[in-house]
Amino acid sequence: MTEPNDLLRGRFEAPTDAFVERFTASVGFDQRLYRHDIAGSIAHARALAEARAITADERDAIIGGLETVRAEIESGRFAWSVALEDVHMNVEARLTELVGDTGKKLHTGRSRNDQVATDLRLYLRDEIDAVIALLDEVMAQLVDLAERHAADPMPGFTHLQTAQPVTFGHHLLAWFEMAHRDRARFRDCRKRVNVSPLGAAALAGTTFPIDREATAAALGFVGVAANSLDAVSDRDFAIEFCASAATTAMHLSRWCEELVLWASERFRFIDLPDAFCTGSSIMPQKKNPDVPELVRGKAGRVFGHLLALLTLMKGQPLAYNKDNQEDKEPVFDTADTLRGCLRAMRDIIGAMRPNVAAMGAAAEAGFATATDLADYLVRKGRPFRDAHRVVGEVVRHAQAGGIALADVPLDALRRFDPAIAEDVYATLSLAGSLAARDHLGATAPARVREAVAQARRRIADDGP
Amino acid sequence: MTEPNDLLRGRFEAPTDAFVERFTASVGFDQRLYRHDIAGSIAHARALAEARAITADERDAIIGGLETVRAEIESGRFAWSVALEDVHMNVEARLTELVGDTGKKLHTGRSRNDQVATDLRLYLRDEIDAVIALLDEVMAQLVDLAERHAADPMPGFTHLQTAQPVTFGHHLLAWFEMAHRDRARFRDCRKRVNVSPLGAAALAGTTFPIDREATAAALGFVGVAANSLDAVSDRDFAIEFCASAATTAMHLSRWCEELVLWASERFRFIDLPDAFCTGSSIMPQKKNPDVPELVRGKAGRVFGHLLALLTLMKGQPLAYNKDNQEDKEPVFDTADTLRGCLRAMRDIIGAMRPNVAAMGAAAEAGFATATDLADYLVRKGRPFRDAHRVVGEVVRHAQAGGIALADVPLDALRRFDPAIAEDVYATLSLAGSLAARDHLGATAPARVREAVAQARRRIADDGP
Amino acid sequence: MTEPNDLLRGRFEAPTDAFVERFTASVGFDQRLYRHDIAGSIAHARALAEARAITADERDAIIGGLETVRAEIESGRFAWSVALEDVHMNVEARLTELVGDTGKKLHTGRSRNDQVATDLRLYLRDEIDAVIALLDEVMAQLVDLAERHAADPMPGFTHLQTAQPVTFGHHLLAWFEMAHRDRARFRDCRKRVNVSPLGAAALAGTTFPIDREATAAALGFVGVAANSLDAVSDRDFAIEFCASAATTAMHLSRWCEELVLWASERFRFIDLPDAFCTGSSIMPQKKNPDVPELVRGKAGRVFGHLLALLTLMKGQPLAYNKDNQEDKEPVFDTADTLRGCLRAMRDIIGAMRPNVAAMGAAAEAGFATATDLADYLVRKGRPFRDAHRVVGEVVRHAQAGGIALADVPLDALRRFDPAIAEDVYATLSLAGSLAARDHLGATAPARVREAVAQARRRIADDGP
Amino acid sequence: MTEPNDLLRGRFEAPTDAFVERFTASVGFDQRLYRHDIAGSIAHARALAEARAITADERDAIIGGLETVRAEIESGRFAWSVALEDVHMNVEARLTELVGDTGKKLHTGRSRNDQVATDLRLYLRDEIDAVIALLDEVMAQLVDLAERHAADPMPGFTHLQTAQPVTFGHHLLAWFEMAHRDRARFRDCRKRVNVSPLGAAALAGTTFPIDREATAAALGFVGVAANSLDAVSDRDFAIEFCASAATTAMHLSRWCEELVLWASERFRFIDLPDAFCTGSSIMPQKKNPDVPELVRGKAGRVFGHLLALLTLMKGQPLAYNKDNQEDKEPVFDTADTLRGCLRAMRDIIGAMRPNVAAMGAAAEAGFATATDLADYLVRKGRPFRDAHRVVGEVVRHAQAGGIALADVPLDALRRFDPAIAEDVYATLSLAGSLAARDHLGATAPARVREAVAQARRRIADDGP
Repeated sequence: MTEPNDLLRGRFEAPTDAFVERFTASVGFDQRLYRHDIAGSIAHARALAEARAITADERDAIIGGLETVRAEIESGRFAWSVALEDVHMNVEARLTELVGDTGKKLHTGRSRNDQVATDLRLYLRDEIDAVIALLDEVMAQLVDLAERHAADPMPGFTHLQTAQPVTFGHHLLAWFEMAHRDRARFRDCRKRVNVSPLGAAALAGTTFPIDREATAAALGFVGVAANSLDAVSDRDFAIEFCASAATTAMHLSRWCEELVLWASERFRFIDLPDAFCTGSSIMPQKKNPDVPELVRGKAGRVFGHLLALLTLMKGQPLAYNKDNQEDKEPVFDTADTLRGCLRAMRDIIGAMRPNVAAMGAAAEAGFATATDLADYLVRKGRPFRDAHRVVGEVVRHAQAGGIALADVPLDALRRFDPAIAEDVYATLSLAGSLAARDHLGATAPARVREAVAQARRRIADDGP
Repeated sequence: MTEPNDLLRGRFEAPTDAFVERFTASVGFDQRLYRHDIAGSIAHARALAEARAITADERDAIIGGLETVRAEIESGRFAWSVALEDVHMNVEARLTELVGDTGKKLHTGRSRNDQVATDLRLYLRDEIDAVIALLDEVMAQLVDLAERHAADPMPGFTHLQTAQPVTFGHHLLAWFEMAHRDRARFRDCRKRVNVSPLGAAALAGTTFPIDREATAAALGFVGVAANSLDAVSDRDFAIEFCASAATTAMHLSRWCEELVLWASERFRFIDLPDAFCTGSSIMPQKKNPDVPELVRGKAGRVFGHLLALLTLMKGQPLAYNKDNQEDKEPVFDTADTLRGCLRAMRDIIGAMRPNVAAMGAAAEAGFATATDLADYLVRKGRPFRDAHRVVGEVVRHAQAGGIALADVPLDALRRFDPAIAEDVYATLSLAGSLAARDHLGATAPARVREAVAQARRRIADDGP
Repeated sequence: MTEPNDLLRGRFEAPTDAFVERFTASVGFDQRLYRHDIAGSIAHARALAEARAITADERDAIIGGLETVRAEIESGRFAWSVALEDVHMNVEARLTELVGDTGKKLHTGRSRNDQVATDLRLYLRDEIDAVIALLDEVMAQLVDLAERHAADPMPGFTHLQTAQPVTFGHHLLAWFEMAHRDRARFRDCRKRVNVSPLGAAALAGTTFPIDREATAAALGFVGVAANSLDAVSDRDFAIEFCASAATTAMHLSRWCEELVLWASERFRFIDLPDAFCTGSSIMPQKKNPDVPELVRGKAGRVFGHLLALLTLMKGQPLAYNKDNQEDKEPVFDTADTLRGCLRAMRDIIGAMRPNVAAMGAAAEAGFATATDLADYLVRKGRPFRDAHRVVGEVVRHAQAGGIALADVPLDALRRFDPAIAEDVYATLSLAGSLAARDHLGATAPARVREAVAQARRRIADDGP
Repeated sequence: MTEPNDLLRGRFEAPTDAFVERFTASVGFDQRLYRHDIAGSIAHARALAEARAITADERDAIIGGLETVRAEIESGRFAWSVALEDVHMNVEARLTELVGDTGKKLHTGRSRNDQVATDLRLYLRDEIDAVIALLDEVMAQLVDLAERHAADPMPGFTHLQTAQPVTFGHHLLAWFEMAHRDRARFRDCRKRVNVSPLGAAALAGTTFPIDREATAAALGFVGVAANSLDAVSDRDFAIEFCASAATTAMHLSRWCEELVLWASERFRFIDLPDAFCTGSSIMPQKKNPDVPELVRGKAGRVFGHLLALLTLMKGQPLAYNKDNQEDKEPVFDTADTLRGCLRAMRDIIGAMRPNVAAMGAAAEAGFATATDLADYLVRKGRPFRDAHRVVGEVVRHAQAGGIALADVPLDALRRFDPAIAEDVYATLSLAGSLAARDHLGATAPARVREAVAQARRRIADDGP
C-alpha cells in the first residue's frame, strides 16, 4: 500500500496530526468528482505521450489502470482513504497499486492546482447541462398549463391587492420569462466554465512541451485559460454558477410563495396534489404545502453559498491558496439543491389543479376594472390624472354601498362624470377588461395564446 | 412494521411520490438529534403521567422503550428509514414496535413543532458548552504564550506598515480579547437558547393539563417560552448562535491571516509545526500553512449559513412553516466548523515556534520609534502637530541616508529641532519605546505581564 | 487656514490627487459623529491636563474652543471640508483656528485610531438606547391591543393552513416575545459597546501618563478596553449591533408579511389606516399597504450591511487598516433603517383596526377544531396516533359534504368511532377549543390576559 | 401648485402622516434618474400621439415641457419635493405646472410600475457602459506594465510560500484575465438590461393601442419584455449587475491585498505614489496604502448590496410590491463604488513603481527552482513521485546548510540521485527556470510577450 502523505512530505519530519488529517481532507466530499478526475487524467496521459514524457505503452497502462479504478468506484469496491486527502490522490495511489511505477509518472507536468480546477469545470459543465434540461422541462410545463388557461381570469395583484384582471395563463407566462432568463444566464455562464486550465501546473506552466489545446479539445473545452497563474486561482466560474443559481432559487421562491397563498383557505385558487403535501402530526385536517414551502426556504441556503464563495475569494493573493478547498461544498450543495427544486417545481406545475371558478370569483370582487373605467374616461377626453380621481370617488361610493363597479347604476355614475354612457358596462366586465389589453405582452387571451406559441419557439431555440 | 406516512395521512388519497419523499425527508441530517429527541420524549412522558394522560405503567414502558431505542442507535443497530421522514418519526415508530400501542400515546399533548424546537435547543446548548470549553482552552494557550513573550519586541503594524514596536505577548493578548468577547457572546446566547418550547404543541398549546415548568426543569431549561405561537416558530436562538459563530470565525480568519503572513518567506516570524502544514504535489520545497488557510477560508461558509438562516426566516407568517426544516443543516455545519477551527487554533497556538530574533530585527527596521521622537518633542514643549511634522522630516532624512533613526547623529537631529538633546537616544531604542507605553492596556512588558495575570482570572470567571 | 493634509504628510513629496482626496474622504458621512467626537476630545483634554501634558489654561482654551465648534456645527455655520478628510480633522483644524497653537496639542497621546473607535461607540450607545426606547413603545402598543382582543378568535395558521383557533391577542403576544428578545439582545450588545478604547492611541498605547479609567468614566463608559492593539481594531460591537438589528428587521418583516396578508382582499382581517397606505398611479381603487411592504423589504438591506461588516473585517491583520473606514456607512444606515421601521410599526400597531368578525368567521371554517376532536378521543382512551387517523377520516367526510365539523351529526360521528358522545360538541366550538388550551403560554383567553399582565411587568423591568 | 398625493388618493380620507411621507419617499435617492425618466417620458409621449391618445400639439407641449424640466434640474433651479414622493411625480407635477392640463395626459397608458423599471434599465445601461470603459482602461494599463516587465522575475507564490519563479509581467496578465472576464459578464448582463418594459403599465398592459416596439427602439432598447406581469416585477437585471460587480470587486480586493503586501516593509516589491497613500495622525514615518486598503474593504459593501437585492426579491408574489422601492439604493451605491474603485485601480496601476531588484532577490531565495530539479530528474527517467521525494531531501539538506539550491555542490547532489549531472545548474537558475515554461499561458518571457500582444487584440474586440 502506498504511504500517502509521504509522497508529498519528503522535506517534513513530523507526520500529520490525526485531527489535522481529517480537518484538511476533502475526499469526503470531492470523491464525487472521480469521473471528471479520471477523464482529465486520461487526457493528460495522452498529452504526456504526445510530448514524449511517457511512452505509448506507459500511456496505455495508465489509461487501462484509470478505467479499472473508475469501474471499481462505480461498483462500490473502491476503498476511499482519508489519509490520501482527496479524490486525486486516492485515484493516483490506486492507479500505482494497479500499474506500478508507471502510475507515478502520471503527475508529470501537472499539479493538483490545475487538476482540481479542471475537475470542477468538467463537473459544473455537466451540472449546467442538467439544470438547463430541467429548466426546459419546467418551461414546457408552464407553457402547456398557460395554454389551457389562456382565457381564464384571475385577479392580477400588486401589493397583494386586487389590481386588474389578468388570465391565469398570462400569469404563468410571467414565470416562463423568469425561467427563460435563467436559462440564458446559465448558457452564458457555461461559456466561461468551459475553458481548460490543464497545463497551468502549479501556477507557472510546465517544463514539458505539452499541447494544451489538444488536451482541452479532448475534454470538450472550447477554450484554454490564457494565463497560468489565473488558471489555478480563478473561481469566477463557480461564483457565476452560484449567482445564476441564486437568481433561479429566488424565482422559485417567488412561485412557491404564490403556490402557498393560492393553496390556502383564504384563496383556494389551486389544489396541490397530495403527493406534494404532508399531513400534520397533530392536526388531522391539515394538508400542508410542504414541497413549495421547502423550495421557498431553500433559496436562503443558495444565497448563503454564493456569499460564502465571494467571501472565500475576497482578498486572496495569487495564486492558489488552501482556502480554495472550501469552494467545493457550496458548489455541490448549490447544484444538488437547484436540481431538486427544479424537479419538484416541474412535477408540481404538471400536477396542480387550478380552481378556475374561485379565481374568477375573486377577480369579480375588488374593483379590478377600475382602471378600465379611468381609461374609458380618458377616451372621453378627460386628462388621465383627473379621470383617476373621479374613479377613486366612484370606488369609494361603490364600496360604501357594498356593490361591484359593474352594479353601480348609470345615473349614479353620471353624477361623478356626465361623460359616462351606457357603453361603460362593456368596459367594466372581466372579459371586456381582458380583451382590451391587446398588445404585445399584455393579458388579452389572444395575446396570451400568441405568447404561448412564441414561448414554444423560444424553448426550442438552442442559440446562446 | 409501522407504515410511516399513513400515520399522518388519514385524510389523503395519494401516497407521497418517491422523489418527494426524499426531497422532504430530514432524517439524513437530523438523526444526530436522537439523544436530545429521546431526552425530550422521556421528560414529556413523565409530564403526561403527571397529567394522568397516561398511566405510570405506560410511562415506564415508554421510557424503557426509548432507552432501548437509544441503545440501538448508539450501537449502530438502528435501521433509519427515509420513509419515516425525520428523527422524531423514526424513534417513535421503533418505540411502537417495541412497546406496542402504548408507544402511540407518547405524542399526546405535543406536536413535531414543539418537539423539534426542543431538540434543537438541547443540541445547541451542548454545542455552546463545547464551544465555550474550546474558547477557554484557546485563551489558556494564548495567555501561556503571551507570558513567555511578554517582553519580546515585534513591529506593531497598522496598514501592514511598521508603526510602533509592541511585544509579541501584547499582540497575542489582542487575540485573547477577541476570544474573551466571543465567550461572552456565547454565554449571552445560551440564556436565550435555554428556554423550553415543550407544551406549545402545534402552535396553540395543548388541551392536556401538562406542567410545562416541570418538563422544562427536568430538561435543565431555565425558562419556559411564554407564548405558544412564538415557541414553535422562533429560531432567533439559532440565528444568534450563527451570528456569534460568524464573529468568532471572523476573528480566527484574522489570526490565520497573520499566521500565513508570519510563516511566509518574507516575514519568518514563526515556524508552524509540520503537522499543520502539507507539502505540494509538485514543489518539493513547499511547506504550506494549510490549516491556517483552511480556517481563514471557513469564515465564508459560516457567514453564508448566518445569511441563509436570516433569509429563511424573513417574511414567514406565523406559526411553523416547512421552510423551517432548512434551519438544521446550516446550524449543524456552523457548529461542526466552529469546533473544528477552534480545535485547530488551540493546537497551533500551543505548537507554533516564534522566531524572536526575526521579529526583533524587523522591529528595528521601519522607523518604528518615530512616534516616540514626536512625543519627546512634545515633552520638550512642541505642539503635537508641529512635532509630527518635524519627525516626518527626520524620517525622510534618515530614509535618504539609509540609516535607522537611532543612528542619526545628534547634530543632524538638532538641525531639525534644537530642543533635541542626548537623552533622545533612550527614546529611540526598542526597549525604551516599549517601556514608555506604561499604562493599562499598553505594551510595556510590565503591563503585558499584569494583563496576563488578569487574563487568567478572567478565564476562570464563570460569571455571565 | 490650516493646510489639512500637510499636517500628516511631513514625509511626503506629492500632494494627494483630487480624485483620491474625494475617494478616501469620510467627512461626507462621518460628520454626524461630531457630537461624540467633541465629547471625546473634551474628556481627552481633561486627561491631558491631569497628566500634565497640557496646562489647565490650555485645557480650558481647548474645551471652550470645542464648545464653540459644536455650536457652529449645530447652527449650520460650520464649513465642512473634504480636504480635511474626516470629522476629526475638520473639528481639530477649526479648533486650531479658534484657539491657535494650543489646539495642536489636543492630539497629544491619542490617534485617530482610538478617537474614531471612541466616537463610534458613543454613537452606537445612543442609538441602542433609542432602539430600546422604541422597542418598549412597540411592546406597549402590542400589549394594549392584545388585551383588547384577548378573547377574540382567529384561525391559527401553520403552513398558512388553518390549524387551530387562537385569539388575536395571543397572536399579538407572539410578536411581543420577539420584540422582548430583541431588547435583551440590544441590552447585551450595549455592555460590549460601552467600553473605552481611549488611550490605546495608534495601537500600542501612549507615552503620556494618562488615566484611561478616568477618561472612560467621564464619558460614561463602564469598562476600559484591556489591550491597545485590540482596542483600535475591534469592530465586534458594530457587528453585534448589526446582527441584533438583522434579527429585529427579520421579525418586523414577519409581522409585515402578516399585515400585508391580513389587509388583502382574501383575508380582510385588518384595516390599515389610510396614513400608512398609498394609492396607485393608475388603479384608483387600490389601497396599497406601502409601509408594511417597505418595512418587509428593508430587512434585505439590514442583512446586507451585516454581511458587509463581517466581510470587511474578515482576514484583516492587526491592527487598524484603512478598510475599517468602510464600517461607518453600514452602521449608520442600519441604525437609521431600524429606527424608521420601529417607529412605523409602533404607529401602525397603534392605529390598525382589526376586523374581529372576519377573523372569527375564518376560524369557523377550515376544520380548526379537528385537534380538539383528536384530544377528545384520547381522553376516551384511544392512542393518539389512532385518534389522529380517525379524525382525518371525519374531516374527509365533512369536507365531502361541505359542512363544518360541528355540523356532522352524532350518529355519523359515531360511525367513525363509537366512543364519541353528545359532549363532543362542546369540544368542537371555537370557545370550547380556546378555553381548553389552559396552561402557561397557551391561547385560553384567561391565559392571554395573564400573559398581558406579565408582559407589562416585563416591559418595566430594567434589568439586564 | 399641484397637491401631490391627492392625485393618487381619490379614494382616501386621511392624509399621509408626515413621518410616513418621509419614510416612503424615494425622491432623495431616485432623483438621479431624472435624465432617464424624462427620456422615457418623451418616448412615451410620442407613442401616445402615434396611438392618437393625445394630439401632436399635446405631444409637442409635453416634450417641450419635459425639456424645460430637464434644464431646470441641470441648472440646479428645480425644487424637489418630498411630498411628491419620487422623481416621477416631481417631474410630472412640474410639467403640469408648465404646460397645464396637457401634462396630466402624459401618464395615460402607463404606470409608475413600468416607468420606474424603464428608468432603472436606462440608468444601468449607462452605468454598464461606463464600467466597461473603465475596465478597458484598466486592462490597457495592465498590458502596458506587463510588457515592460515581461522578463523580470519575481517569486510566484502559492499559499504565500515561494513556489516557482514567474515574471512580473506574467503576474499582471493574471489580473488582466480577471478584468477581461468581468467585461464579458457585464456585456452579457447588458443584453438582459437592455429590454423595454414600457407598455406593461401597472401589470396587465394598457387599453391604449401603443406600439411597444417603437417606444423600445426610440429608447435604444434591443428587445421588448414579453410579459407585462414580469416586466414590472423583474429585477433580475439589477441583481445580475450587482453579481457582476461583486465578482469585479472581489478581483480588485485580491489585487489590493497584493498591493498592500508588496508595499509593506517585508516585501518592498513596489512603491506606491504618495498620491495614493496618506500619513498617520500620530506616526510621522508611516506611508499607508490607503487607497488599496479602501478598495479591498469596499468589496464587503458590494457583496452586501447583492445579498440585499436577492433577499428583497425572495418570496415576493407577483406583480409589483412596494418592497421593490428598496432596489435602487443598493444598485446606485454598487455602481458608484465600482466606478470609484476601477478609477482608483486604473490610476494606481499606471503610477506604481515596481522594485525589480527586490522582486528578483526574493525569487532567488526560497528554493523556487526545486520543481525544475524534479522535472530534470523526470527527464532523466525517474517517475515524478520519486523525483519529488528526492528533491524534498535535497531542499532539506540545503536549508540545513543555509545555502541556495544552485549552490549545492554536484557531488552532494549526486549523493541524493546519481543521475544528476553538471547540466543541472542551468535548470536551477531563474532565467533557466522561466524560459523552460514555454507554452501557451506559461511564464517564459517570450510567451508573456505573445500574451501581451494577444491581450491588446482582446481589448479591442467589441464582440460579445
